[in-house]
Amino acid sequence: MMMNQDTICAVATAQGGAIGVVRVSGPEAIRMTSEIFTPIGDRPLDERKAYTLTFGRLLSTEGEVIDEVLVSLFRAPHSYTGEEATEISCHGSVYILQQVMQRLIGCGCRMALPGEFTQRAFLNGKMDLSQAEAVADLIASSSAATHRLAMNQMRGGFSKELSVLRDKLLHLTSLMELELDFSDHEELEFADRSELSQIAADIERVIARLADSFSVGNALKNGVPVAIVGETNAGKSTLLNALLNEEKAIVSDVHGTTRDVIEDTIFINGTLFRFIDTAGIRQTTDVVESIGIERTFRKLDQADIVLWMIDGTTSHDFEVLKADILPRCADKRLLVLFNKCDLLSPERCKELTTAFADVDAPRLFLAAKNRTGLTELQNHLLRAAALPEVTQNDLIVTNLRHYEALTRALDAIHRVQSGLSARLSGDFVSQDLRECLSHLAEILGGSFDVEDVLGNIFRNFCIGK
Amino acid sequence: MMMNQDTICAVATAQGGAIGVVRVSGPEAIRMTSEIFTPIGDRPLDERKAYTLTFGRLLSTEGEVIDEVLVSLFRAPHSYTGEEATEISCHGSVYILQQVMQRLIGCGCRMALPGEFTQRAFLNGKMDLSQAEAVADLIASSSAATHRLAMNQMRGGFSKELSVLRDKLLHLTSLMELELDFSDHEELEFADRSELSQIAADIERVIARLADSFSVGNALKNGVPVAIVGETNAGKSTLLNALLNEEKAIVSDVHGTTRDVIEDTIFINGTLFRFIDTAGIRQTTDVVESIGIERTFRKLDQADIVLWMIDGTTSHDFEVLKADILPRCADKRLLVLFNKCDLLSPERCKELTTAFADVDAPRLFLAAKNRTGLTELQNHLLRAAALPEVTQNDLIVTNLRHYEALTRALDAIHRVQSGLSARLSGDFVSQDLRECLSHLAEILGGSFDVEDVLGNIFRNFCIGK
Repeated sequence: MMMNQDTICAVATAQGGAIGVVRVSGPEAIRMTSEIFTPIGDRPLDERKAYTLTFGRLLSTEGEVIDEVLVSLFRAPHSYTGEEATEISCHGSVYILQQVMQRLIGCGCRMALPGEFTQRAFLNGKMDLSQAEAVADLIASSSAATHRLAMNQMRGGFSKELSVLRDKLLHLTSLMELELDFSDHEELEFADRSELSQIAADIERVIARLADSFSVGNALKNGVPVAIVGETNAGKSTLLNALLNEEKAIVSDVHGTTRDVIEDTIFINGTLFRFIDTAGIRQTTDVVESIGIERTFRKLDQADIVLWMIDGTTSHDFEVLKADILPRCADKRLLVLFNKCDLLSPERCKELTTAFADVDAPRLFLAAKNRTGLTELQNHLLRAAALPEVTQNDLIVTNLRHYEALTRALDAIHRVQSGLSARLSGDFVSQDLRECLSHLAEILGGSFDVEDVLGNIFRNFCIGK
Repeated sequence: MMMNQDTICAVATAQGGAIGVVRVSGPEAIRMTSEIFTPIGDRPLDERKAYTLTFGRLLSTEGEVIDEVLVSLFRAPHSYTGEEATEISCHGSVYILQQVMQRLIGCGCRMALPGEFTQRAFLNGKMDLSQAEAVADLIASSSAATHRLAMNQMRGGFSKELSVLRDKLLHLTSLMELELDFSDHEELEFADRSELSQIAADIERVIARLADSFSVGNALKNGVPVAIVGETNAGKSTLLNALLNEEKAIVSDVHGTTRDVIEDTIFINGTLFRFIDTAGIRQTTDVVESIGIERTFRKLDQADIVLWMIDGTTSHDFEVLKADILPRCADKRLLVLFNKCDLLSPERCKELTTAFADVDAPRLFLAAKNRTGLTELQNHLLRAAALPEVTQNDLIVTNLRHYEALTRALDAIHRVQSGLSARLSGDFVSQDLRECLSHLAEILGGSFDVEDVLGNIFRNFCIGK
């Protein structure tokens, strides 16, 4: 276990609640807390047992009462960080929390960096890197699915799967190295290359499945990407507002903080959708090659679902638009929306239907302003998203860093497979195997110590020498 | 002690932190928490001692892990509310907190009303009403002064002062009633009326001091009211922005939430100022009697300090303005500000000084846009506010309800005093005394049970019968 030398503190609760919690962790955590805290009718804090609460007063340097608080006591290694730790639960006043922090800093405590408590938990061996990353995901989780995935990952589900994978890879590596070292010993029998290929194919299948799960994981975590194309006055923002109003989830204000920065995200029946801004499609008839249009189409490429929104009351050259939009939607789920349908005559409706008869996509008449057709649109979106029901045992990669490491591991195992089938020398294949292992190790934040583990496996082979 | 029948729960922390705390209180608090919580490697929660922390898992009805949490255990009457209670400390995810609340509600817990935990603490005799009110003030406190006052009040400083006052009033009442009941017993000696008047004067002095302290208390809590009068383009908002930028206090975002609703509040060197909008003074030369102007002047009446802001670069009929403004500022601290001084010639400056030679108020040249003269203005404001340094032992009334009760108590004691000096019958005086007592009792939220206490005092008089 690696112990940090300094003691850190931070306000662990958001501003504005009834309760505020200050966390302290490090070798001096209990001593520093004792210095600013006087228990009421109880033994001194540092004589109290771990996992107890002590009521008392926090005092300023002038001896004034800052607050009456409860202190939770934890002793190494049985704390979140694995270090000596306290949690000071006080009234949630900004002023009080500021005073508590100032007092602790006055005692030599250092203000913690973002995530530093979890970083210490990782450094002290309380969790691996993928579990530490899951803590942030868990706190940010806003739906049943993202919560389940983060919880599974935090509780080591992903780490366990990777360990199984590692053992398989180590087994394969050891077989390769055996072949290498003892190939001149004719009395020894080795697994033939087809058996090795079989094992490699097993490994490839698992890594590929994990890497593939990222498209679902990403959609769950960041929302199913939906692009709305159409003229600026086709009613895009009216539609977004209408969908937003339908949302009954209490999480809207959490996403509100990121909505400005990224895109509009809206929960529909517990599934998160991310609406991508594609303003500017209107100009296609004017300057087809303009930069603005290119940007719009690049954004369109990120989408899984495209809503093509058409103001039914105005006339368009649909053939020109179709030529622009349809080729870009080949691998996407397209929905054609005729908006402002409350203002359309039956003839105009028929006209629009005819104009899109050759487009292979569901068509929907709606009036976003009056919420007409909204439920039908939501059902269409949910069907188009087609996200699986996630259970707490599912392994779905939601983290971009993990996905990238898996992609690199997949490349390496592919090279192993071609090496095996091309009957390349064991050295080359072995090198790719080690690379594959090191990419998987990145995810857990340690190193799969190939030499050590190989040593063990070697002994287990009992070759007799 | 009065026990509530149902068990309540609430999220006690604000949204968005690393830690979220759910509070549960009531006769079933521990049982309900046990129902959704499985300790890890430990005795069941309800067998644990009070003031302990238990680590474990919160489970959904389907047996899925909602979160790994720490549960704090409290047993009646040694909890905040005086009831059985738990605090569930989980990851600060909105989704998780929502799930925890749903689980508790599923076990028969009721979502708490705002302030209901403190209300229960009051009903269970853990604190009086003025202490309970101080809890809300403490959480809202954003400066050293408001924090000190709330802390003193929460710790019973105000309640103690009121008890002393009550005892004096009861003593006076008992003397009055003695006079009433035994006035035909000639062998008994009574305090003469001048002695009674002396005691009443003592009481009056204390109540008057407390009631008077409200102007300071209100200024500390809600800000020293400052009105800025002057033309709309005189630079008022530039000045406010300049003052706001100077502010280094971290509490600005707390006040930011109320700023839209009430007025601009700005900390200057730890003192809160509340700037009152008085747009419209410009029209005085046009329609003197307009409703808008009247509204402006009514707002002016609330101010302790008036900043008269003049755009030095434009010409005014100062005599007309003076006739409007000066009579309204008789009991206020007036400051005359000549803005845009960077654009003024020395001659113009002299001209302005001369025009205001007859105005008895400090004059200041400044350029709000360049921050010229800002420090001088801040010093002027601090001197004009002249708020006392508050210590944790000071008794200053900050609560409007308390102030109103004190004002009514003061009226009653005044009537007692006139009754005594007019030699009114004891019955009349006694009634006013009881009224005075009941107004003070309102503040603590109980009733000073006059009959009971009188009974005790009577016995203590030992008249021999």
